[in-house]
Amino acid sequence: MKSFIDVPAGSDFPIQNLPYGVFIPNGSDRARPGTAIGDWVLDLNEMEKSGLLRTSFFSGSTLNPFMAAGRSAWTMVRKTLQHILSAECPDLRDDMDLRSLALFPRDAVSMVLPAQIGDYTDFYSSREHATNVGSLFRDPDNALLPNWLHLPVGYHGRASSIVPSGTEIKRPFGQTKADNADPVYGSSRLLDFELEVGFFTGPATELGERITVENAADHIFGFVLVNDWSARDIQKWEYVPLGPFLGKNFATSISPWIVTLDALEPFRCAGPAQDPKPLPYLETKGDFSFDIDLQVAIRADQAPQEDVVCRSNFKYLYWNICQQLAHHTSGGCNINPGDLMASGTISGPEKGSFGSMLEITWRGTNPVKMSDGTERKFIADGDTVVMRGAAEKDGLRIGFGEVVGRILPAS
Amino acid sequence: MKSFIDVPAGSDFPIQNLPYGVFIPNGSDRARPGTAIGDWVLDLNEMEKSGLLRTSFFSGSTLNPFMAAGRSAWTMVRKTLQHILSAECPDLRDDMDLRSLALFPRDAVSMVLPAQIGDYTDFYSSREHATNVGSLFRDPDNALLPNWLHLPVGYHGRASSIVPSGTEIKRPFGQTKADNADPVYGSSRLLDFELEVGFFTGPATELGERITVENAADHIFGFVLVNDWSARDIQKWEYVPLGPFLGKNFATSISPWIVTLDALEPFRCAGPAQDPKPLPYLETKGDFSFDIDLQVAIRADQAPQEDVVCRSNFKYLYWNICQQLAHHTSGGCNINPGDLMASGTISGPEKGSFGSMLEITWRGTNPVKMSDGTERKFIADGDTVVMRGAAEKDGLRIGFGEVVGRILPAS
Repeated sequence: MKSFIDVPAGSDFPIQNLPYGVFIPNGSDRARPGTAIGDWVLDLNEMEKSGLLRTSFFSGSTLNPFMAAGRSAWTMVRKTLQHILSAECPDLRDDMDLRSLALFPRDAVSMVLPAQIGDYTDFYSSREHATNVGSLFRDPDNALLPNWLHLPVGYHGRASSIVPSGTEIKRPFGQTKADNADPVYGSSRLLDFELEVGFFTGPATELGERITVENAADHIFGFVLVNDWSARDIQKWEYVPLGPFLGKNFATSISPWIVTLDALEPFRCAGPAQDPKPLPYLETKGDFSFDIDLQVAIRADQAPQEDVVCRSNFKYLYWNICQQLAHHTSGGCNINPGDLMASGTISGPEKGSFGSMLEITWRGTNPVKMSDGTERKFIADGDTVVMRGAAEKDGLRIGFGEVVGRILPAS
Repeated sequence: MKSFIDVPAGSDFPIQNLPYGVFIPNGSDRARPGTAIGDWVLDLNEMEKSGLLRTSFFSGSTLNPFMAAGRSAWTMVRKTLQHILSAECPDLRDDMDLRSLALFPRDAVSMVLPAQIGDYTDFYSSREHATNVGSLFRDPDNALLPNWLHLPVGYHGRASSIVPSGTEIKRPFGQTKADNADPVYGSSRLLDFELEVGFFTGPATELGERITVENAADHIFGFVLVNDWSARDIQKWEYVPLGPFLGKNFATSISPWIVTLDALEPFRCAGPAQDPKPLPYLETKGDFSFDIDLQVAIRADQAPQEDVVCRSNFKYLYWNICQQLAHHTSGGCNINPGDLMASGTISGPEKGSFGSMLEITWRGTNPVKMSDGTERKFIADGDTVVMRGAAEKDGLRIGFGEVVGRILPAS
């Protein structure tokens, strides 16, 4: 399938992708839903107003109404958009007035959060990451806690501090404690990223209702990249017994374009073998993971180039998204359209595939040498952290774009 | 001060209280903000429409716009309402048309959630509770973890499953594990309540902004009773290392009327002495607690009477609300109007003052004998849990009403 819109080679956004986001054209103050194609953004409300899209999901400033509509609506809109944008369809292609109304160069818009996020959940589903962190924070001989192989461990995060890619992040203050010293309050010295992928939920469920692994996909709208910024020194002191709190809630950055399950369908693959076998409510048969390459780069302040510090892959995750959602609702917890559920840090088996500086530098004992001659144990003021993701096969590339965040000094 | 509306002796809602809630009159389908006085509810949007209240906070179905307006607006509205409702003011008293439009018998309305709750945080601020739980779940000799006396430990909860008083709660399913057995998935056997008090936040802050202990009260709108339902068997298995998740997120019940700080002003008192002295960003001078009697009763299914199982007091909390909010934002986490921050279980020093069945029955080793001849280790299907709170002094009673929840069998 080809579009009448030119899609540069290597673009993250061919007509087979069509991710959803919310954008504000330069000079406008109205946020509106759109889809990305090549270097362009298509205004979906304009498509509705023109009659080419016969829906009423896109007149607001979030994707929540569309997320609420469910899988049949998602598939229908996707097919319609692929038709409208195809090289063969004249409706938009030959209507220069509509094109000038509805198509915006991607570099002439700014992206905002794609949804009003009601609740944010963060899982901990990479076995390699959990093992690394358990070794560093607790006990290398019992790194994985007893529950880890039996359920997708997760916790509730802070929804208010989720920000779109590009938002600058202040280094947080917080309370920390060195061994054999009194606690102090000051700026975090061990600021870290966490490479994650999150999914947005679809139709709401009622309190007391459960989503099974079999129908979980009907409640999953699509994926974004997530940088779950973490202050390790704050986290270490505060996290017992109720889990991470201020060590995480100062900011979480997400990529602006939501890539749908439909777009990722060609990249389905098996996840890691699960042993012990999960309990029946968590059992999935078939390919429930996705082969998506992920990377993290750091660009030091004023540095001429960035340094890639991690190459990982979504398929390393031990617990898959259907298991995560089924577990989350297994006690009757209700979900709403636009909830965000993130994977937890995605670390692979090898050293170059670790998804946080904590693991990459093994808590600072093995600093990263940067191309500008400096070293990093954790993230420095002025550093920009860039995460990217893309699935690629047989000439088809379905990309996520980037999630970018620059660290400002504490103030 | 007296109202022209008759306030029965012992009422929770004299003219000195005027708590805020959102109600739906029987036969209507429109939720609207109101205040309670005696056995009546006053429609605040009708007060605006009549011109007696010259604000524009109350035309929607939540209190969020009013919460966002800040302390000067809160004080002004409170004073205006006390004037409108006073025995001396004829404006409403003598306007029978307006009275019939704006006043509803409290037993002829149903109450809904007072706000759209963006984020829910649960603290753990009772020293007695943390000590009891630490003894039961971990080690009696080191019950209080090292950070506990240095910061108000807290975690993020689930906002979507917060429900108004009266909502029936299904016993949750979940994964649990007995010692020396494999994990199983089934209905929770150790269902518990937690007696808490929560506050709703006021004006929003920006990401990176901090609220100091000194100005925290300007961001605190008022209090509700909170029953943080807990499934102890699910919690015990899942909670390491990231904290409670499904053991808590199946439901949290809140009382419908938000009692303001202004109304509770006469009941300010000192909290427990804090030793070690908190770090400067957490240091408060003066009376930062409130003397509010709290109780929990259980009414067994079909039982003729309820049994009071706990009498506690808000003043037992070690960490006060200004410390909680200052700590929460100390790393730059932003808040929005309508966030809910709960205290954690409020247990007192004596046995009769413990705020959860876990503590009351000491994990089931010391069952409660009920007046219908049955015993309780935890909560049984059909049980109704009722929590009440009121501050009382010199003939003035500022009450919270109740938060009520009945447990339905798992299904």
